[in-house]
Amino acid sequence: METLVLPPNVYSMTCPTRQVLDLIADRWTALVIGLLGDEPKRFSELQRGIGGISQKMLSQTLRRLERNGLVTRTVYAEVPPRVEYALTPLGKTLCPLLAAIRDWAEANIDQIIAAQAVYEK
Amino acid sequence: METLVLPPNVYSMTCPTRQVLDLIADRWTALVIGLLGDEPKRFSELQRGIGGISQKMLSQTLRRLERNGLVTRTVYAEVPPRVEYALTPLGKTLCPLLAAIRDWAEANIDQIIAAQAVYEK
Repeated sequence: METLVLPPNVYSMTCPTRQVLDLIADRWTALVIGLLGDEPKRFSELQRGIGGISQKMLSQTLRRLERNGLVTRTVYAEVPPRVEYALTPLGKTLCPLLAAIRDWAEANIDQIIAAQAVYEK
Repeated sequence: METLVLPPNVYSMTCPTRQVLDLIADRWTALVIGLLGDEPKRFSELQRGIGGISQKMLSQTLRRLERNGLVTRTVYAEVPPRVEYALTPLGKTLCPLLAAIRDWAEANIDQIIAAQAVYEK
């Protein structure tokens, strides 16, 4: 019997790569991975570093990143226990891609504000 | 009087660059801009090309991209009128960045599925 294997295609809703795109083409992922790129961080450091992220959204983002093998969660047996989040080697490969996205937003803000002003007229 | 101008910073919720990040670090933006990278397209072509996007979500995504100067909407006076969406020069500068994100999702799916299997155990 022949098995047909379709090539990965993010444009197909049922392709598993679409769920990966949903995870990585995401504002919170772009910000969390950027902060973890420097060094491992605690939950509270991440929350302080990302303006406007709720505790729930940060937990959810970290859990999805952990589930998909991009972030590790390490509990150190201290009192009180210390929990640190770090990028996996796979997660690190995303850093330059997401840095390019963040940098683009910062570099092109003037052109975008000008475009908004034209559109609102 | 001195005016303080803060540098652009996507990590600040109140910085205008954060809204830009919200727009470009987005699954639907990544898919729409990818399709428009080849050539201008009609609404129906985009909707057919992107599995699982609703009419409402596609309209909303296109309007945000247009408002921010990344996409143009051109109405051709035909019967029935033809409407085409195309990337602006600014929008085109995003193509390689978002292609890298889509390609990453497709290239790393095996590692991610393996990580999910470990996590679920």
